[in-house]
Amino acid sequence: MEIAEFQQLMSDLYAHNDRKRGPAATMLWLVEEVGELAEAVRRDDRENLREELADCFAWVGALANLYGIDLEEAFLEKYPDKCPTCGQKPCICTD
Amino acid sequence: MEIAEFQQLMSDLYAHNDRKRGPAATMLWLVEEVGELAEAVRRDDRENLREELADCFAWVGALANLYGIDLEEAFLEKYPDKCPTCGQKPCICTD
Repeated sequence: MEIAEFQQLMSDLYAHNDRKRGPAATMLWLVEEVGELAEAVRRDDRENLREELADCFAWVGALANLYGIDLEEAFLEKYPDKCPTCGQKPCICTD
Repeated sequence: MEIAEFQQLMSDLYAHNDRKRGPAATMLWLVEEVGELAEAVRRDDRENLREELADCFAWVGALANLYGIDLEEAFLEKYPDKCPTCGQKPCICTD
């Protein structure tokens, strides 16, 4: 699946709700899902990790849609086949 | 770009760092980027929104890689062309 197809599916499913809710409340939804993901990481709950990663991925897509941002373009601008900090592939940063 | 290609690029760039850092510290990186995204939403800073959405997208990919989770598969399991809560497309939930 292309990243653009993923964003289109999210738009088909949720764009009307996202527009009604607006950016701040949509950001809160993402934060809620990130909290659930953090719990799954803490518990090392592999089944939930899968679902919560899917939810965080989905809400990043929803927020990008709300702002009309193409995630593939934005990602490749920031990470153009090299680390944006050290300029290397693989990255040689020490975190 | 396919979602799988995005995950492969993240792996080529960062898998060695992600493994060394581990899940908890990688989750913290994601949380840090989510905080920066929240600031961009609050300020309605369109240029930063683009970059912070790219970073959140990237760190969700890094965390999925660390657990060997295919984001496309996990996403389509949870969102199989309909809303997982109401079962409709478009979604008819009221949030």
